[in-house]
Amino acid sequence: MKHLQASEALHIILEAVRTPGTEQARLEQALGRVLAQDIRANRDLPPCDVSAMDGFAVRSADVANAPVILEIIEDIRAGDMPRNTLAAGQCARIMTGAPVPPGADAVIRVEDTQEISASVVQINKAVKPGNDMRLRGENMFIGDVVLTAGTEITPGVIGVLATVKAAQFAVYRRPRVAILSTGNELEAMDEPVDPNKIPDANSYALMAQVQALGIEPVLLGIARDDPLELEQYLWRGLEYDVLLVSGGTSVGVHDYVRPTIEKLGVIMKFWRVAIRPGHPLAFGMLPPTKVPQVDAVQGASREPTQAYLEDRQGGEQRVTPQCAACGTLVFGLPGNPVSSMVCVEEFVAPALRRMMGNPRLYRRTVTARVAHEVKFCPGRTEFIRVQLTRDEAGYIASATGTQSSGVLLSMARADGLLVVPANSTGLAAGAQVIVQLLDGTAFQDEIGFSE
Amino acid sequence: MKHLQASEALHIILEAVRTPGTEQARLEQALGRVLAQDIRANRDLPPCDVSAMDGFAVRSADVANAPVILEIIEDIRAGDMPRNTLAAGQCARIMTGAPVPPGADAVIRVEDTQEISASVVQINKAVKPGNDMRLRGENMFIGDVVLTAGTEITPGVIGVLATVKAAQFAVYRRPRVAILSTGNELEAMDEPVDPNKIPDANSYALMAQVQALGIEPVLLGIARDDPLELEQYLWRGLEYDVLLVSGGTSVGVHDYVRPTIEKLGVIMKFWRVAIRPGHPLAFGMLPPTKVPQVDAVQGASREPTQAYLEDRQGGEQRVTPQCAACGTLVFGLPGNPVSSMVCVEEFVAPALRRMMGNPRLYRRTVTARVAHEVKFCPGRTEFIRVQLTRDEAGYIASATGTQSSGVLLSMARADGLLVVPANSTGLAAGAQVIVQLLDGTAFQDEIGFSE
Repeated sequence: MKHLQASEALHIILEAVRTPGTEQARLEQALGRVLAQDIRANRDLPPCDVSAMDGFAVRSADVANAPVILEIIEDIRAGDMPRNTLAAGQCARIMTGAPVPPGADAVIRVEDTQEISASVVQINKAVKPGNDMRLRGENMFIGDVVLTAGTEITPGVIGVLATVKAAQFAVYRRPRVAILSTGNELEAMDEPVDPNKIPDANSYALMAQVQALGIEPVLLGIARDDPLELEQYLWRGLEYDVLLVSGGTSVGVHDYVRPTIEKLGVIMKFWRVAIRPGHPLAFGMLPPTKVPQVDAVQGASREPTQAYLEDRQGGEQRVTPQCAACGTLVFGLPGNPVSSMVCVEEFVAPALRRMMGNPRLYRRTVTARVAHEVKFCPGRTEFIRVQLTRDEAGYIASATGTQSSGVLLSMARADGLLVVPANSTGLAAGAQVIVQLLDGTAFQDEIGFSE
Repeated sequence: MKHLQASEALHIILEAVRTPGTEQARLEQALGRVLAQDIRANRDLPPCDVSAMDGFAVRSADVANAPVILEIIEDIRAGDMPRNTLAAGQCARIMTGAPVPPGADAVIRVEDTQEISASVVQINKAVKPGNDMRLRGENMFIGDVVLTAGTEITPGVIGVLATVKAAQFAVYRRPRVAILSTGNELEAMDEPVDPNKIPDANSYALMAQVQALGIEPVLLGIARDDPLELEQYLWRGLEYDVLLVSGGTSVGVHDYVRPTIEKLGVIMKFWRVAIRPGHPLAFGMLPPTKVPQVDAVQGASREPTQAYLEDRQGGEQRVTPQCAACGTLVFGLPGNPVSSMVCVEEFVAPALRRMMGNPRLYRRTVTARVAHEVKFCPGRTEFIRVQLTRDEAGYIASATGTQSSGVLLSMARADGLLVVPANSTGLAAGAQVIVQLLDGTAFQDEIGFSE
């Protein structure tokens, strides 16, 4: 069977992505969203020439031959308006951010002065016009576009939005995501422990990966290996913008997902990708005209899950109707949790981020040296779970124990994914490699500065 | 005035930090929290020897002289229990994750076989005992500690928690954080635009930085330059675990914060740090015995803000009583938004992360080459807002326009903070530097893999 290369698969997925529209967000709840409009300045900032320091506003000509004695005619603090115009030989005590009074053209820092009395100061330094002043409009002029559509809303962006008093603005809507696990061998969280079953880790691991992108997914539950039951679950999932189905896409004779999903009208683009772990990754789209309507779904014979019911009764965000032009993106993920998590990192998360309007789709990468030999996996891109440490020469990547895709702890302990390209012929210890940083690794345990 | 070095200031702050206790969290709401208990396996996983592949379970002795013809006596899928014991010359069709039947000691992948009929298969490959099997307990044995207290809950950790069916567990409590802006020059978000005032960006920029750590802070509002009003606001803020006060800590004669905060019983540890921007950074602690009680606060003459009232009437998390041994940590931040944001990144965030039990306190750093000359700032650690680009040799850091601390756009556009050590004598273009990655930069716009 011909396997797609990872980049070909990603290209097909990203080509299929549509942004499901925009909505209004309040400043207090906008962190991590993406602006869907340009933001303009609503005033000049600073509104006039202001002092950049605590000190004295002076006429620069007066202090050309410093030291010089000047009369203090006024105290101006931030929020005050100056009452007087400086004449020759005069100055004003001024605070950071306070308006520079008419007549003054420079500020002298308090440390370059010596107060003689409450009304007389000695200036010890000559300065040029404009010294330690911030000019009107230095930050922004009214009407300037200060942030453009497509900007991810970081804390710094929140600060700029507050500066222009944008209490509410348009952001890209978050896609609605449903997660379904499949398989007779799975044991649900609320079922008693059965040693012959496997706990359903996938639903929750995928939930957390989606939550990490700022999206609250809906867990549909576990569909058993029964074509009718599976069809009803899939039908419910197809009502969302994105459906993640784990398990049931491999070549085993007991896998029902493939025929069922095609029967429901999903046009599958591929069923395999040349990656390890995760090669049974499938992707398809349900055309917009075939997306199930609420009534059709409610008419399904099986009782919906609690999560599904809560979602249907949910708040404003959840009942947002699906974008008419979007259809549903369907990802068939491996049943194995490590494999499915790698597929979400590499293929689903970029699609979700593009849907949310984010120009940055991929995990930040760093270069590292690999601590040990890495065998190659001919023709497949391999993702090895690694921990990162550091020495004088930079990052060192070491595999987190066994790389068996059955061992989820290898993912829990990983700082990143070491990428072994498909054309690699193996890596010797010390070779330079690319590592994608995973969640939780925006922080480290070593101080980021030194004196 | 003697300025503390940045690392000395950080040491003093982290010494003062106490973890404000633990609480229970549900799996669905635990992402980003930190485990406050060890987590043990509740079963052997796999529960027995299982197949790692789709294929045939065999007796390895039978296939030593492959190719060989075997009788298929059973189909075993994940979730099934084998019904028969393999005799010589027999095999069982088996799916990934299904139990290996008694008598079998290896699995042959389906691609190394050729089915002759529904009950007969040709095995084309000899394998050793244990081939493509996952042994009982390979992931975990019942009773093993699989996650230790202090583990940050990433998606991979969520997957492990689901695997051991930990639906609820102890995590470190999030500190309660209050944010107060001060200054007559500030204009609140809901006030009309007054060209002589400065919009209060600080409250929101700091809010977002605290939100990015998973904490929902309370905005107390703006205290004007009036000692009584300031005292009442500060008194309210001291009821929280952490109080961030911006503005009013510089040496200006109109700054009331310093005397007022000391009057309320806060023991200040320092008022200046040798950093740029942000040197007017102050830090102190209110001893636990002096933390205001609810009644005392309600007795304050000024009406509390809406945010404060909502917080007092809030849900379970918000009314959690303050840890008796903790007291209140008070950070005096510069009035300038860029400076105060840098101070939060470098000093407040590490303290909050330690309070939440996180062993990783600092932003992840990468090495980069600086794109341009950087002048030095003798004796001070400097933090330059930079954008990161990349070429063949790695990251390149370029300052985001003007580094005037008045220009918040420089922070909004930054991918990271370039750290210029206090002992630096300047950096030539191309010099290697350390860059702390900021929010929103866990992602990049370049694919993190290649084939």
